[in-house]
Amino acid sequence: MTLDDLTRKEGRRARDRASLDQLLDEVLVGTLVTVTTDGRPWAVPMLFARDGDRLLLHGSTGAGALRQVANGAEGVLSVHVLDGLVLATSMFEHSAHYRSAMVRGELVRLTGDDAVTALDLISDGLLPGRRAEVRGMLGKEVAATSALALDITPDNWILKVNDGGADEELAEEGVWTGVVPVHTWYGEPERSPWLDDDVPVPPSVERLRRDQRRGTNR
Amino acid sequence: MTLDDLTRKEGRRARDRASLDQLLDEVLVGTLVTVTTDGRPWAVPMLFARDGDRLLLHGSTGAGALRQVANGAEGVLSVHVLDGLVLATSMFEHSAHYRSAMVRGELVRLTGDDAVTALDLISDGLLPGRRAEVRGMLGKEVAATSALALDITPDNWILKVNDGGADEELAEEGVWTGVVPVHTWYGEPERSPWLDDDVPVPPSVERLRRDQRRGTNR
Repeated sequence: MTLDDLTRKEGRRARDRASLDQLLDEVLVGTLVTVTTDGRPWAVPMLFARDGDRLLLHGSTGAGALRQVANGAEGVLSVHVLDGLVLATSMFEHSAHYRSAMVRGELVRLTGDDAVTALDLISDGLLPGRRAEVRGMLGKEVAATSALALDITPDNWILKVNDGGADEELAEEGVWTGVVPVHTWYGEPERSPWLDDDVPVPPSVERLRRDQRRGTNR
Repeated sequence: MTLDDLTRKEGRRARDRASLDQLLDEVLVGTLVTVTTDGRPWAVPMLFARDGDRLLLHGSTGAGALRQVANGAEGVLSVHVLDGLVLATSMFEHSAHYRSAMVRGELVRLTGDDAVTALDLISDGLLPGRRAEVRGMLGKEVAATSALALDITPDNWILKVNDGGADEELAEEGVWTGVVPVHTWYGEPERSPWLDDDVPVPPSVERLRRDQRRGTNR
């Protein structure tokens, strides 16, 4: 069944802003959706981060993605996480654990220092602490950077969650039911082949991998 | 930077159908995108599977998702996988390993036996072998099932891949560069709490988890 359909059965938590924020903070890539000037659907996956009541999407000024999105155009950022497969006693009742959200609104283009601030926040969302380990932006890099912002308002988003298991009333003797969880995991860092052997894995990466064991990130 | 932008730097493999198929077969949830009758962007995450040159998307006849998509409407299925974070010597050069694809075309609604066949193929894509472990569809379930099909033609899709690492020419002494891989993993199955202790985890789930160790699925 569709993710949308599932929520009709299992209930959705549509107005829980804290759960929305948690999902937006957990997901690294969303799908930006808009309508082109000739009226056709258009989508592109983008790295993003949440900054309070704003979503920040990163691009360069030359990117095809951003050229197609006018300042002030309506856009939707769609995100989802598949948390597990739900096995039931009939195929019809099989479903999925998932969380998904859509935020709809006007896309505002940021340039110059605003775009650099957005970029910093996106970096901090992806890999906290990395900015302190490398050089900052050069003037020409700032000039080549733009970003999009999309406000989160009280009523421009939908959150859908299914975390229900198989239905006990439909249990059949001998048929296994339950959930197979799906996890996302940061693996062993792969160093660039030319790197000197004595350059250690940086603290940002050590922290990212350590924190995931404690469940504080994806 | 945007995923789109990255490909301009690193090169894209836009016409490699085998790589497209591999991505579509690996990803379980895509984002279906279309334009509503009042001209607004609309998106919903959906479970899907590939059947040769067709994509099959599953829904029930009552689903809000499918009610909004007319038979014959233009749609885009957007899928992506984040394979890793690429750490460079400056924030500007940081990027991501990813694969993404968009397939654009006319959405055809399937009903009755066509929809059931589509559903079977989607089930087989999500959890091979599970269909043999539970009862089949009842007449009322068939009646409540519809699905969408989207053809893959020689020229209605785009595949983007970035698998490049940090740039050796930008290496700086003492600065770690490389890739932090991102993996997706099926975890320990969680049985329904009311299930008898002697009901074993089914072969479909054992196989899913065993095969991932061999790298034959996500």
